[in-house]
Amino acid sequence: MIETDIVIIGAGPTGLFAVFEAGLLKLKCHIIDGLPQPGGQLTELYPKKPIFDIPGYPSVGAGELIDNLMEQIKQFQPGFTLGEIAEKIDKLDDGTFIVTTNKGTAHKAKAVAIAGGLGSFEPRKPILKDLEFYEQEDRGVEYFVKDPEKFRGKKVVISGGGDSALDWSIFLSNVASEVTLVHRRNEFRGALDSVEKVQELKSAGKIKMITPGEVIGFKGSERIESVDIEVNGARMNVVTDYFIPLFGLTPKLGPIANWGLEIEKNAIKVNNALDYQTNIEGIYAIGDVNTYPGKLKLILCGFHEATLMCQSVYNRINPGKKYVLKYTTVSGIDGFDGSRKEAEKAVVKSID
Amino acid sequence: MIETDIVIIGAGPTGLFAVFEAGLLKLKCHIIDGLPQPGGQLTELYPKKPIFDIPGYPSVGAGELIDNLMEQIKQFQPGFTLGEIAEKIDKLDDGTFIVTTNKGTAHKAKAVAIAGGLGSFEPRKPILKDLEFYEQEDRGVEYFVKDPEKFRGKKVVISGGGDSALDWSIFLSNVASEVTLVHRRNEFRGALDSVEKVQELKSAGKIKMITPGEVIGFKGSERIESVDIEVNGARMNVVTDYFIPLFGLTPKLGPIANWGLEIEKNAIKVNNALDYQTNIEGIYAIGDVNTYPGKLKLILCGFHEATLMCQSVYNRINPGKKYVLKYTTVSGIDGFDGSRKEAEKAVVKSID
Repeated sequence: MIETDIVIIGAGPTGLFAVFEAGLLKLKCHIIDGLPQPGGQLTELYPKKPIFDIPGYPSVGAGELIDNLMEQIKQFQPGFTLGEIAEKIDKLDDGTFIVTTNKGTAHKAKAVAIAGGLGSFEPRKPILKDLEFYEQEDRGVEYFVKDPEKFRGKKVVISGGGDSALDWSIFLSNVASEVTLVHRRNEFRGALDSVEKVQELKSAGKIKMITPGEVIGFKGSERIESVDIEVNGARMNVVTDYFIPLFGLTPKLGPIANWGLEIEKNAIKVNNALDYQTNIEGIYAIGDVNTYPGKLKLILCGFHEATLMCQSVYNRINPGKKYVLKYTTVSGIDGFDGSRKEAEKAVVKSID
Repeated sequence: MIETDIVIIGAGPTGLFAVFEAGLLKLKCHIIDGLPQPGGQLTELYPKKPIFDIPGYPSVGAGELIDNLMEQIKQFQPGFTLGEIAEKIDKLDDGTFIVTTNKGTAHKAKAVAIAGGLGSFEPRKPILKDLEFYEQEDRGVEYFVKDPEKFRGKKVVISGGGDSALDWSIFLSNVASEVTLVHRRNEFRGALDSVEKVQELKSAGKIKMITPGEVIGFKGSERIESVDIEVNGARMNVVTDYFIPLFGLTPKLGPIANWGLEIEKNAIKVNNALDYQTNIEGIYAIGDVNTYPGKLKLILCGFHEATLMCQSVYNRINPGKKYVLKYTTVSGIDGFDGSRKEAEKAVVKSID
């Protein structure tokens, strides 16, 4: 059982920044996210796109913002349960919570902050016979590349025409023994350098391309042994160990919708007048996942909400204890990793 | 008469960022601040100190943050009335406001956002006979260096032992005909490089130092002609055109306190549950100057408050018009200066 002060559900910018504000209050955090890496939408959907409305950044790449937030919270050593979806929540008699994932990992915490963004991102799936069989663990269909090493020396077929399909084809061309990229059009929709790189790898014989083509079926008894592909009305069979369809993600509120929280228009209602707490005491909702009068789904609002949430959790855990807000500029920061950050002290020096 | 959509009182980080969010909504802003440059406390009190709790910045210099915010809002071409204090507010029958400064500059706006931080910073003054006479305009006592050119070819005496006194002594040593720095101790409290630079300029004969010394009186009929200085119990007279005491600033809520706003503990009460509006419709208070249950005086909270304020002003100005929130990542930004910022478009390209 993982134990912490605050379990944060969602590793997007709001969830990550909550770790920082909690850390200033000496509260430990553990983050659960269904995606295999932190960053939420920013890393998964648009890592290379610039954002223009983060205060103090005339422009910042989405991936860069996440890198910066990870650097900012490093000193507070958050725990991560990645690639698992928070499925069940139980409130114990002592007011603490147990959050359990779809893989059975249990987390005990004094408070829960749902920073689930638009929900968990579920992969868009192809409509294929026997998909449900082959998408079971280790039978050959994978919707995410969680650990590229899994594909070392293996044959993979990737489907899709966007950045994910291009980027993973490029990456895996150095890992897998064979990469075949299948797309139903000749045109790809992605960053220019990715398209050019794939073209280059194709010319060098490091990536096989089948366009316009579509995976239409599987062969294999225990697991995938090959896929059938339709190419211009004809049909071919490609031997492979893995099929990775990368058709994008769609957000779903998911299991959170069944936790007894007040939901309005696919978002969780909170008391914005105070601390972004939900109708269940000790469960907070921050960032895009919540709603209240005047709510704006902006990253900068999530930062504010995360901060007030942490303050409220501190008061919940330390009832009656008076907290005096300290300014990082004045008092510096003591990290959980033993680090100390502070301004260079002004020099007191004589001039003679 | 200056006309705009939102008059913002206070050019600190919250006030500056409000210009950006207003700009996204096509609302024009004009900022009034008593200090001679934008940035509020950050520029005036601790420009070189790092801040650690700006989301996405593991560390950022206070001055650097202001520079970045100025760059971020440039495209929305805000107006500035600097070096003047907002003194009087009148609400007209049509619901618009006239804000007038201590120098009589009048600003007409559809809404007013008070982003006054801890209040206007008033200089700590020395206790000196006839100070009130000499601090009148152009009589020789100056508490701020608003325009260094004013001192070109003139003799100046600067008093103080902190960063301001050191930095202005350095700067004016290239502008004034003579700079004398008077401090009641031999020790200076400032950035190491500033102290060293002053030492160097002193050795080079570009700055005169009188320590431990104190300005104790003025001579001059129309304006200052010289100051009397006590040095180690002895007394000397130094001929000068200007006396610039730089003893730091103290925040005062100032004239705002008399505008009929609900005040609690030296801060303006707002309705945080919605839009940070005060008890007077159309007047908002954002950032450190406001208070509500759970209020934290943090820059990142000011950013959020500024954003919700702008949204509320938009609805006030465009009643019944439905605004659809756009994400800068997706839709880009059209600046008032004709600029357009957007993500590089994804390429649609064939691979052959």
